[in-house]
Amino acid sequence: MNHPIHFVSLGPGDPELITLKGLKTLQKADIIYCPATQGKHGIISRATDILKAIEVDESLIHPFILPMSKERTDALNAYNELFLDAQAEYLKGKQIVIVAEGDAGFYSSIQYVYDKFEEAGIPVDRIAGIPAFIAAGALAGIHIVKQEEQINVIPGTASFDELSAKIENGMIIVIMKLPGCQEAIHTCIRQYADKAVFHYFENVGTGKEYYTTDIATIHSKDFPYFSLLIIQPR
Amino acid sequence: MNHPIHFVSLGPGDPELITLKGLKTLQKADIIYCPATQGKHGIISRATDILKAIEVDESLIHPFILPMSKERTDALNAYNELFLDAQAEYLKGKQIVIVAEGDAGFYSSIQYVYDKFEEAGIPVDRIAGIPAFIAAGALAGIHIVKQEEQINVIPGTASFDELSAKIENGMIIVIMKLPGCQEAIHTCIRQYADKAVFHYFENVGTGKEYYTTDIATIHSKDFPYFSLLIIQPR
Repeated sequence: MNHPIHFVSLGPGDPELITLKGLKTLQKADIIYCPATQGKHGIISRATDILKAIEVDESLIHPFILPMSKERTDALNAYNELFLDAQAEYLKGKQIVIVAEGDAGFYSSIQYVYDKFEEAGIPVDRIAGIPAFIAAGALAGIHIVKQEEQINVIPGTASFDELSAKIENGMIIVIMKLPGCQEAIHTCIRQYADKAVFHYFENVGTGKEYYTTDIATIHSKDFPYFSLLIIQPR
Repeated sequence: MNHPIHFVSLGPGDPELITLKGLKTLQKADIIYCPATQGKHGIISRATDILKAIEVDESLIHPFILPMSKERTDALNAYNELFLDAQAEYLKGKQIVIVAEGDAGFYSSIQYVYDKFEEAGIPVDRIAGIPAFIAAGALAGIHIVKQEEQINVIPGTASFDELSAKIENGMIIVIMKLPGCQEAIHTCIRQYADKAVFHYFENVGTGKEYYTTDIATIHSKDFPYFSLLIIQPR
């Protein structure tokens, strides 16, 4: 066997933001492994929705359930199972594709499985995708970063002090996974409304996408999982 | 007139890394404005090469020459001309697309033209693209950034002291436009070879793409314009 296992990045949610290369790779697949979560009302999979929208043959889609918890053990177990299953199918000669939302190497835990295949000596290939913050910038029509500016992408574990220091430094900041630092963000907005613009996004690339820079509106929000913030100096 | 002028991001160079949405928008265009530079041996345009590769009707491609200099006045004049020309065609009812390499809002000066159309009250729409550093990560198969890590994207004007401080802080660093800080990078590599991995890339997404982490090889290089570096803590 010397064909690779392909990791295809689906982009942030809009099915048409997949790359042509990703689409062509999906069209040649025998099996497509696709992340899903067990919700209260059944299985939820934004990735599966994307695949259906671009008319991938549904019989090829194999969802794998990723436990949603801070504890990583359950997710690692799920990934180990995915690895063993995909490896067995690969060794039968199948064309395997594993998909991920956004870009598969940018804050995506699927890279864990990619690394396991590399360790096992099985060739792998990754196809880039649009990160959510890039799609957010396009939605808002803002110049995310320009010329000599710097941009800092941070996860939603940032404290108020950390955010404050970055804003004082004139950095452009992207915060992912906002629910983890909701209070710090609210405090920041109260303190820096005159120094920075807070671009708030929800569900970019989906039918429910939402964008505002209105501070009172942002304050009234409980940040959902698929939210992000771009902070730019005024 | 209420249809928008579309700004389509072409991605880093590989024609198939354009999004499906970008491709469909190009296929509906009447005129496609496309950046080019006047080189020693004629006009060079990577963007035009991408358009030809994805089989856009060549008669629709209108290259505009962007002067390559640190002095921004010439480029702004070229953009003003582009704006006036595209506006005139738009007002005749044409479907106008303006393309940019990478993502049109991420270190891309085409946003200047986008803003001018907004000021003129003409609707605009931007379609996201893959930034070069995302494609570089896929090429190398590296986990660019994960979990609680932070990433800092900086232009090639960074000094040794600045790079040094970021590396000491355990940041993941992406440096764009390397020729502007070649000496600082060489000094950094000599000092931090044991603390960080230096992923060096040239011409990602083209037939000439190149990737190495070998320090001696990086040291022997004169960094070309289309080069970038991803620095990760060891």
